[in-house]
Amino acid sequence: MISTEERQRCIEACMECVEACNNCYVSCLGEEHIDMMRECIRLDRECADICQFAIKAMSSNSPYMQQICELCAQICEDCAQECGKHQHDHCQRCAEACRHCAEACRSMAA
Amino acid sequence: MISTEERQRCIEACMECVEACNNCYVSCLGEEHIDMMRECIRLDRECADICQFAIKAMSSNSPYMQQICELCAQICEDCAQECGKHQHDHCQRCAEACRHCAEACRSMAA
Amino acid sequence: MISTEERQRCIEACMECVEACNNCYVSCLGEEHIDMMRECIRLDRECADICQFAIKAMSSNSPYMQQICELCAQICEDCAQECGKHQHDHCQRCAEACRHCAEACRSMAA
Amino acid sequence: MISTEERQRCIEACMECVEACNNCYVSCLGEEHIDMMRECIRLDRECADICQFAIKAMSSNSPYMQQICELCAQICEDCAQECGKHQHDHCQRCAEACRHCAEACRSMAA
Repeated sequence: MISTEERQRCIEACMECVEACNNCYVSCLGEEHIDMMRECIRLDRECADICQFAIKAMSSNSPYMQQICELCAQICEDCAQECGKHQHDHCQRCAEACRHCAEACRSMAA
Repeated sequence: MISTEERQRCIEACMECVEACNNCYVSCLGEEHIDMMRECIRLDRECADICQFAIKAMSSNSPYMQQICELCAQICEDCAQECGKHQHDHCQRCAEACRHCAEACRSMAA
Repeated sequence: MISTEERQRCIEACMECVEACNNCYVSCLGEEHIDMMRECIRLDRECADICQFAIKAMSSNSPYMQQICELCAQICEDCAQECGKHQHDHCQRCAEACRHCAEACRSMAA
Repeated sequence: MISTEERQRCIEACMECVEACNNCYVSCLGEEHIDMMRECIRLDRECADICQFAIKAMSSNSPYMQQICELCAQICEDCAQECGKHQHDHCQRCAEACRHCAEACRSMAA
């Protein structure tokens, strides 16, 4: 049974992750060495989009919210791993938001 | 020129509006007198979806963010007006979130 | 290994499903006996939204496309079952599109 | 007054545009000279996303569909112009799909 507090915490973690990923996405597109940011750009978009999907599912009490959160957790972990490799501030902040969101989503999905 | 604070304030207003609209949406679908909630259901979905679209635009620094915020403001106003007609708590809370979001979006679009 | 033809076939099945679900959704909201259409409305939206998510994943060659298609197949099956209970033309057409889409998504996910 | 045929034609143009833009997006991310594709990547995503938003609006008979199509037309035109500058097959095909979609959306919005 998922508590209201747990769900709210997960929605907020997803919201922070959407912002961090989309900010990292557009910042990567402006980086001098964009050649190294390909995977980061791709994963930032994937992650921002699944997080918005998870927010919709949780806030509309979807019966699929746990499955969506499980997928969201996986994408957040992949994005955290990729962003964590880069020293740009936007990447480090994104990696942190992704790790936090992955944790909240794993807990929702359990 | 849009300040970082103004944009952040608008993103947060949109996020609250997404939650309020999706919560109102699913609550309306469970109301005894659903017959009276048709417009509310339809507008809740429209409003939640355009707010998520506006969040994506603002957080990825889209050159179209002002036009998207202008449309978002209009849909929020329409949703606020419809939800404001109903006495259910979820409708009243949704109307309030929509009004607040419409204001923040109008200010972004100006 | 997924062939280009199989993916294209699945994208097209998802596109037809998006149209059928959104059409059924708005038609249900206009039905006289809306009281009986609650589950149909809710599932139509879920199904239209996951289908659009799957289209994005497939057309951008996402590494998560198979997991997204698996979830899409399940939601399509649930929507087909619910819509199949109702005799309205829009429900029957939606159930058919959902069954077809579920099949294509199951084949993608396999 | 918008005819059913006109709307269907616009939905189909948007669907082709979603596929072309997302394909161009992921292909640009794999290009050797990604440095030159920054604007193309950014616009491909914007365009694919607004096209999916327009499809949802048209297929659910949204009262905002004309305003959404107007915005969609503008983004399609911008994406067509950017993609048209590049000689890659995926860019040329994307530019063509965007021009076609822009036309259909302008006609819807009129």
